[in-house]
Amino acid sequence: MSDVIQLARELIQRPSITPVDEGCQTLIGARLSTAGFELESMVFADTTNLWARRGTQEPVFCFAGHTDVVPVGDEQSWQYPPFAAELADGYLHGRGAADMKGSLAAMVIATENFVRKYPNHKGSIAFLITSDEEGPFINGTPKVIETLEARKEKITWALVGEPSSTAELGDSIKNGRRGSLSGELSVRGIQGHVAYPHLAKNPVHQAMPALSVLAGAHWDDGNRFFPPTSFQISNIHAGTGAGNVVPGTLKASFNFRFSTEVTAPELQQRVIDILDAHQLDYAIDWKLNGEPFITGSGELLEATQTSIYEVTGRHTELSTAGGTSDGRFIAPTGAQVIELGPVNATIHKVDECVRAADLEELALVYERILEHLLC
Amino acid sequence: MSDVIQLARELIQRPSITPVDEGCQTLIGARLSTAGFELESMVFADTTNLWARRGTQEPVFCFAGHTDVVPVGDEQSWQYPPFAAELADGYLHGRGAADMKGSLAAMVIATENFVRKYPNHKGSIAFLITSDEEGPFINGTPKVIETLEARKEKITWALVGEPSSTAELGDSIKNGRRGSLSGELSVRGIQGHVAYPHLAKNPVHQAMPALSVLAGAHWDDGNRFFPPTSFQISNIHAGTGAGNVVPGTLKASFNFRFSTEVTAPELQQRVIDILDAHQLDYAIDWKLNGEPFITGSGELLEATQTSIYEVTGRHTELSTAGGTSDGRFIAPTGAQVIELGPVNATIHKVDECVRAADLEELALVYERILEHLLC
Repeated sequence: MSDVIQLARELIQRPSITPVDEGCQTLIGARLSTAGFELESMVFADTTNLWARRGTQEPVFCFAGHTDVVPVGDEQSWQYPPFAAELADGYLHGRGAADMKGSLAAMVIATENFVRKYPNHKGSIAFLITSDEEGPFINGTPKVIETLEARKEKITWALVGEPSSTAELGDSIKNGRRGSLSGELSVRGIQGHVAYPHLAKNPVHQAMPALSVLAGAHWDDGNRFFPPTSFQISNIHAGTGAGNVVPGTLKASFNFRFSTEVTAPELQQRVIDILDAHQLDYAIDWKLNGEPFITGSGELLEATQTSIYEVTGRHTELSTAGGTSDGRFIAPTGAQVIELGPVNATIHKVDECVRAADLEELALVYERILEHLLC
Repeated sequence: MSDVIQLARELIQRPSITPVDEGCQTLIGARLSTAGFELESMVFADTTNLWARRGTQEPVFCFAGHTDVVPVGDEQSWQYPPFAAELADGYLHGRGAADMKGSLAAMVIATENFVRKYPNHKGSIAFLITSDEEGPFINGTPKVIETLEARKEKITWALVGEPSSTAELGDSIKNGRRGSLSGELSVRGIQGHVAYPHLAKNPVHQAMPALSVLAGAHWDDGNRFFPPTSFQISNIHAGTGAGNVVPGTLKASFNFRFSTEVTAPELQQRVIDILDAHQLDYAIDWKLNGEPFITGSGELLEATQTSIYEVTGRHTELSTAGGTSDGRFIAPTGAQVIELGPVNATIHKVDECVRAADLEELALVYERILEHLLC
């Protein structure tokens, strides 16, 4: 069994469901300490974070990742127990195998091999590991970044180990993410009896034309990195259940995934303009989950694409699609940010697994990236 | 204490919450039997009904009503215990005082007085009393009417004791009711993640333009008896609660209150045409709660308006507004149907009550109607 698989198994066997770390960072820290890293455990409320750095100079290359995993769901439905880390038919099985304990193991092994070969490498290597990426993302990466910013410690290049690949290792990397803006809309009407509609004001009837306009609106055309901004209503509720009562309030939740062609305040203003044009009596609670970011070019992107090609022979596709990641908290510091990890087909599902050979290749790609940037 | 108030109190003191009759019909039956009525108890499943008739000839004047009442809600909130039938400050208090044990008492007293004066009246007097008017209206009036129809027993004039008055006794009577048609709409989409909208199909976005058209549609102009047909969405629900999930299904309930200018099948077809025009994947469960009916003229309407004026000095307003009543089951037999009862301000509420003097006047109006029609 290779070193990568061995370490990945040890991590998977720790049932570290958000925000619990279950000793994963201690294990990783011990390995990094042996490899010459200075360790710093940053605990914020229920969340354990590890900041580890080898070297004091810039540029700073940082592996970023998380030790927490999502719950297993119905454990009886799993073919292999979710925390057994079974190796079968060339696949490593278990919760976190792909998202993202496999990547963490590959990062550690790549680093160990790299520093053995190049003990006097340029700049610094760092690890930013959190146990709150799948949860409320409050006490994890954002707080670590805040701490680093306060003491003016800079990350030049961040490589996040999120499972970015779609069919084969390295076929896709994320060089940015869309922004995410949510709103909770409440439209007030006047409750009443359906038999006396003139005494009531139906908020469903009031809101629908406005919601139709929002759902059909064109927000932007996207750009070469981003698809057009999209708007989705995720929840809508009105009514007491009784068939003869005109509801008093309608509630709807919506979410924007937005490109760098618009800003969150611009989207908010356009929503308000549409609602106002329909003369609704409403309130909105906004939540900006993350600004869009892009690493459109630079040494990190170049080193990553080159390394993938050198190790796997594959040309990689750049993507900004999909959900959010902790990259959104690192990018605003000015760092270049790329996400590269294994195939994401099984993440968050029953029978999560990863090809063992992919993890070994991933360690080689990570090591190659270090060579391109720090030699 | 007058005979009307005395009888109303005895009825209110029986806690006959739908479909329980709690002996009310036995009490009424005993009085009618003494007044020369033939009694027939018709029990269907959980519902007790009374059909009582004095005379064998046509025309048949029928008092129609119900002994069941709606639940009391929070009993602690009542100023007087809901089944104590307290008389205070000129008001009779209790659940059913206005809806409609007060009317039942007035009907019985009016009949007793009338047959004492006119033992050889024309035609017949009948009582159709159910204990399932506030409930699912399956085993009450519809089944009694079915039974009468099967044996070709006809009602010429039906006076329903529903509380029709708004500010003063007799200021308004119902000479018809709108139809009521309900639909449960289910619009199917494809569930997915908000970050990948191209893989999902949002049923909220799909449905809103169609629902906007339905909410804004003009169905008819009404006519001299009916306001224009109205459409109300009473409930709308979609979404799992999660903000990042595109819902798979949208459910909406709607209700038409419709005039005699359209039919239920016409309304159904127009809804289907609108939904089809928006290419929705949907299903609808329809429920026709009642056809519209109207007593636009005739001896009953004339006798009622005249009697109200003679007893109270008031001119009465004709109305087809408001909720449904059991009149909708009697009207299709060809009977003329009018609803006349006390002020409805407190019905179905805490502290339901009725002016005691109104019940005494109501008995006089009822008696006067009998005189106009059967002397």
